Amino acid sequence: MPTGDAQETRRRLVEAAYSEFAAHGIAGARVDRVAATAGVNKALIYFHFGNKEGLFTAVFEQIVNQTLAEAPMDAADLPGYAGRLFDAGQAHPDALRLATWHRLERAADHAPLQAVLEANQSKIDAIAKAQAAGRVTTSYTPAEILALVLTIANMWTVMTPEMHLAGPTDSTTRRALVVTAVATLVNP
Amino acid sequence: MPTGDAQETRRRLVEAAYSEFAAHGIAGARVDRVAATAGVNKALIYFHFGNKEGLFTAVFEQIVNQTLAEAPMDAADLPGYAGRLFDAGQAHPDALRLATWHRLERAADHAPLQAVLEANQSKIDAIAKAQAAGRVTTSYTPAEILALVLTIANMWTVMTPEMHLAGPTDSTTRRALVVTAVATLVNP
Repeated sequence: MPTGDAQETRRRLVEAAYSEFAAHGIAGARVDRVAATAGVNKALIYFHFGNKEGLFTAVFEQIVNQTLAEAPMDAADLPGYAGRLFDAGQAHPDALRLATWHRLERAADHAPLQAVLEANQSKIDAIAKAQAAGRVTTSYTPAEILALVLTIANMWTVMTPEMHLAGPTDSTTRRALVVTAVATLVNP
Repeated sequence: MPTGDAQETRRRLVEAAYSEFAAHGIAGARVDRVAATAGVNKALIYFHFGNKEGLFTAVFEQIVNQTLAEAPMDAADLPGYAGRLFDAGQAHPDALRLATWHRLERAADHAPLQAVLEANQSKIDAIAKAQAAGRVTTSYTPAEILALVLTIANMWTVMTPEMHLAGPTDSTTRRALVVTAVATLVNP
C-alpha cells in the first residue's frame, strides 16, 4: 500500500475503526482487525493514534463533527432541531452505538472529550439567548432544556428491544412524537 | 460447598452474574469468574441456565421483577411513577447498565424477553384506562406515553458523561426535572 499519504492512511483507519468499535465496543475491538480492514500496517495505528483509546477518541470526534454538520442547532426552533437529530440517528445507527460504548466503557475513568464539551456549551449559550428573546420557555435552565431535547430526540435508540415492539414501529410516527413532545416541553 | 440446596446455588450464581455482566457485558463476561465468585462449580451454571445467554436472561428477569416491585406504576400519577423509576435507577445503577448491554449485544439476534413484554403490556393497558378516565392526555397513544415516561425517567442514565457535567449535577434537581417534564407531557 502507498505509505506516502499519511492523511489518507488516517482516514482509512478511522473508517475501519468506526465499524469495529460499533460492533464490539472498546474492550472487544481488535486493532489487528482494524489494520487488516484498512489495509494498513498495525504499527501505523500506534503512530497516528498512540493506542486503541486514542483511535476511539478519533472516531468519536468524527461522529461529533458529523452530527454537528448534519443536525445544526437552531435554538429558536428546538423541535425542528430534535427532528434533525432523529434523522441523523436513523442515517447513522452506528454513531449512537458508539456513543453508548463511550458511556459504558469510558465514563468512569476517562477525561471528558473536549469536542463534546465545547459543542454542548455552545448549544447551552444559544438556548440562553433564545430564552432571553422569548423564544424558549424559562421553566427550565438552558442545560436542562438541552438535556431534555437530546434525550427525546434519541429516545428510540436507547429503548429496550421490547418497547420497540410495543411503541409505534414506523419512523414517521416516531419522528412526529419526538417533534411534538419537544415542542410541548420547550415552547414558551 | 453444600450442593443440596439448588435454589441457594441458583441465587448465588445470579447474584455473582449480575456484577459480572454489569461490568463486562455479555461477550466480555466469563462464566469461570461467575462460578468462582459464587463459590460454585462451573458445571452448575450449565445445569441451571443452559449457557451464558441463559444466565444473562435469569439476571435480566430478576431486574425486571425488582424494578416492578420498587417502582409500581400508577397510571393516574405518571409523574410520581417517573420519580420512583428515577429513584430505582439511582439505587441500582448496575440494573441500567445491564439493560444497555441487553440492547447493545442481544437486540439484533435474540427473541424479546417475555417478562419485559408482559410488564410493558400491562402498563400500556393501565395507561389506556387512565386516558379513558380523563386522568392522562389523549394527545398520544398509550404506548407512546409509556415510551416518553420511561425515556425521561431514565434520561440521566443514558446521557453522555459530557452532558452530565453540563446539566444539573445533584440528584434532587435531576429528579425534579424528570417529574416536571413528565407532568408537562402527560397531564390532560
